[in-house]
Amino acid sequence: MNNLNGYDIEDLAVGMSAIFAKTITEADIVLFAAASGDNNAVHINEQFAKTTSFGGRIAHGFLTASVISAAVANRLPGPGAIYISQQMSFKAPVRPGDTVEATVRVKEIILARSRVVLETTCRVGDIVVIEGEALVKTTSLAKREAVVGSLAKVA
Amino acid sequence: MNNLNGYDIEDLAVGMSAIFAKTITEADIVLFAAASGDNNAVHINEQFAKTTSFGGRIAHGFLTASVISAAVANRLPGPGAIYISQQMSFKAPVRPGDTVEATVRVKEIILARSRVVLETTCRVGDIVVIEGEALVKTTSLAKREAVVGSLAKVA
Repeated sequence: MNNLNGYDIEDLAVGMSAIFAKTITEADIVLFAAASGDNNAVHINEQFAKTTSFGGRIAHGFLTASVISAAVANRLPGPGAIYISQQMSFKAPVRPGDTVEATVRVKEIILARSRVVLETTCRVGDIVVIEGEALVKTTSLAKREAVVGSLAKVA
Repeated sequence: MNNLNGYDIEDLAVGMSAIFAKTITEADIVLFAAASGDNNAVHINEQFAKTTSFGGRIAHGFLTASVISAAVANRLPGPGAIYISQQMSFKAPVRPGDTVEATVRVKEIILARSRVVLETTCRVGDIVVIEGEALVKTTSLAKREAVVGSLAKVA
């Protein structure tokens, strides 16, 4: 682990996984509309949203997806990790009050570059609402030790 | 255009583009931390963030990316569009006070399925901070007219 309590690349193994879950409240949707600038009626206007195929307001897809970002930042690899890329497919709507469970699972480790490929899945109950994949840079114990070693030589 | 003032698939042509821009404020970062559950110190703790390679707090990558979602929902294709998928690569940090300009550009049109592939780019000034691609389902004039036609036959 690094000194922020996040995983170093050397701590990871294919198949390791972690979960972060969050209830998406009405407040979150209003806050996300403000923070993103996405005030689409299907997110903030119940009278309109009732007339759509969704039958009522739904969360922004990027709000639901942001629970993946929380799983990466808080759990696996955790603090110290830097996001490089994310692919995500939106599979089903999320409604105010739904609890989104984001699972991140180590799919591939690129040790030399301190990078990890993660499968990222968001579920509400048994329903997959987002599927995707993330590429994340982690900290590295070997690189920290190499720096300490070279500083010792200088001293 | 559909009755929400969004583009139908028949209105789109390869090369069309639109821009949505938003200043990412400190308030947005705090709101996004709350809405997502991502309270990583690099986003909310200036004293800690100063000690990192970023030299200070940065916006969540998914917050910056959400400006793409606003460009899609508000501009092109605009209201009525449904997000299917998004790929995004994070290229450079965004700091509180930076204005993120999201450009969406039509790359490919899949007329029969009412789908459009969009190049999605976020810039702060001349710096590309996010690059990626979105797949979005739009409304269709032809499909609306087909429904009206079949209802007329029933009547």
